Amino acid sequence: MNPEGRAPIETDALIIGAGPVGLFQAFQLGLLEISCHIVDALPAAGGQCVALYGDKPIYDIPGTPVTSGRGLAQSLLEQVAPFKPQFHFGEQVATLVRQADERLLLTTSAGTAFLAKTVFIAAGVGAFVPKRIAVEGIAQFEGNSLFYHPDSLARFAGQAVVVNGGDDVALATAVALTAVARQVTLVHRRDGFQADEGLVASMRALVAEGKLAFKVGQPTAFDGRQLQITTPDATTVDLPLDSLIACLGISPRLGPIADWGLELERKQVPVDTEKYETRERGVFAVGDINTYPGKKKLIVCGFHEATLAAWGAAALVFPGKAIPLQYTTTSTRLHELLGVATSR
Amino acid sequence: MNPEGRAPIETDALIIGAGPVGLFQAFQLGLLEISCHIVDALPAAGGQCVALYGDKPIYDIPGTPVTSGRGLAQSLLEQVAPFKPQFHFGEQVATLVRQADERLLLTTSAGTAFLAKTVFIAAGVGAFVPKRIAVEGIAQFEGNSLFYHPDSLARFAGQAVVVNGGDDVALATAVALTAVARQVTLVHRRDGFQADEGLVASMRALVAEGKLAFKVGQPTAFDGRQLQITTPDATTVDLPLDSLIACLGISPRLGPIADWGLELERKQVPVDTEKYETRERGVFAVGDINTYPGKKKLIVCGFHEATLAAWGAAALVFPGKAIPLQYTTTSTRLHELLGVATSR
Repeated sequence: MNPEGRAPIETDALIIGAGPVGLFQAFQLGLLEISCHIVDALPAAGGQCVALYGDKPIYDIPGTPVTSGRGLAQSLLEQVAPFKPQFHFGEQVATLVRQADERLLLTTSAGTAFLAKTVFIAAGVGAFVPKRIAVEGIAQFEGNSLFYHPDSLARFAGQAVVVNGGDDVALATAVALTAVARQVTLVHRRDGFQADEGLVASMRALVAEGKLAFKVGQPTAFDGRQLQITTPDATTVDLPLDSLIACLGISPRLGPIADWGLELERKQVPVDTEKYETRERGVFAVGDINTYPGKKKLIVCGFHEATLAAWGAAALVFPGKAIPLQYTTTSTRLHELLGVATSR
Repeated sequence: MNPEGRAPIETDALIIGAGPVGLFQAFQLGLLEISCHIVDALPAAGGQCVALYGDKPIYDIPGTPVTSGRGLAQSLLEQVAPFKPQFHFGEQVATLVRQADERLLLTTSAGTAFLAKTVFIAAGVGAFVPKRIAVEGIAQFEGNSLFYHPDSLARFAGQAVVVNGGDDVALATAVALTAVARQVTLVHRRDGFQADEGLVASMRALVAEGKLAFKVGQPTAFDGRQLQITTPDATTVDLPLDSLIACLGISPRLGPIADWGLELERKQVPVDTEKYETRERGVFAVGDINTYPGKKKLIVCGFHEATLAAWGAAALVFPGKAIPLQYTTTSTRLHELLGVATSR
């Protein structure tokens, strides 16, 4: 039982990270008849591929002359669909502990627990989490009067709200709140935005109409009821509020993986090149997070690593069973698993 | 100078094999600004992928839920096109010899010679060559009165020709020859064909009209002027002829690679997993032909091997030059090489 009293989910394989390599990991496990759960800190699949360059072109996926981060994630989701991996989005794996029966107990930031025979760390450069406001002691207000990238704005109805940030998400949030909240103030460190032109125009129009306040400054103190900002001319201004919303972008954090005893080298997890297994038996690391002689942080390399890691896992999930290499072109068993007809 | 007196072609990289892995090898070399020549025994790109399962579906190319052997080859040709690799089809690399200046001299079955700084053996299960008729001493007639999978039928005008085989190529050849040759006889081991229905119907119609003879039997002797076949009831029949054409399919042969001092293990070339280099400096082996701990003969693995081999080659082609890893998503230099516009 985990701290919240729910029995852990038992699984043959747990994948940490739903980026391209994590998704292909699930596909290769599926071909070997190993089902899996996938945990990702982001709200959807695609990892940094979607978070950082969703619409930008990618030219070096073999057999795909051009795609985008989002396009690649879509293709991989379609490819893995027959194997029905179970996704757990918006959760970060916090702990990994070996049990007496050799299985691995993992718990997430949302209180989900897994008992897994094999674990695949496909965490890229780390979990993508919202950047925090750099003010001492501010963390205690998270979830009460401080919110990062909120999913819904309904809870702010009738409130006095301050939005901190200057990108598309910050501006869209501030603009949308003017229809919901009693009073909205946008705070950004400068009078200039890295955001869509139309969105900036809407925001400036609302400011001109008096429906949105805009202040230039940086947060320097917060007590849950009042935000202090410091303006460029070094004066401080206090902004009373019900809720503070911060949209400062998301950035990767390696987080708790560093505490799992995997002897990181420069924030990378060392692996062998036979199975891409870490020093912990049954714990594999694939994609940008691993390191070995010759390593290049390229998606094409992660695909290969995931393939051999799946075979490494098969030996643990099906001990003593000889598993022949089958080809998706000819194997009727693989066609059954993929849900496609066998042609002759 | 090679035996035929032509100066060898000097190149930074020579790729042996134009299958999927050989094509992606050329792409990865291109990203590193290394140009290459590619030699393949087949008449076109695609390797066993096209030769053995051109129309069959493939489901395990990452990011491509389904394609075919031919579809994959087409996509890879499109992807590598910006780098303009120079193809030499219908030639088999016969010799590989280290020169005094460390470069590698290679010659092909067609007499082409290359002086290469780096060589990539992407030869799969070997060169695809036509299956030979299993009759002792028959090899001496090749090119005179015996032809395997001839490119053109013009030379057989007015001749008495025997075609041996029972697949699409054999039947199409026999049918086409009836319009060119004086007399055409099709010989197959049984009265049944592994061929397109319409083609079988055309052939049977020509037989009924007396324009094509058909004999059931296996070749048992050949003297250059006469083919002896043995029928299922064990009698022998002599067929006088000007030319014998055999279309018995094509099959892979490792061939001369076995003689290059690479210490093969079970017909595989051992490589390291840092650069996929063989024991010979500058000679890399990628795809189904290589072996290392954990090796799986899967195309996805060959793509990774080709990627790291390209980096291994870059260190030899540009000695002492530090080469940063660039991403096709963001690098303006790579966009220039790929001939695409840089988006912002």
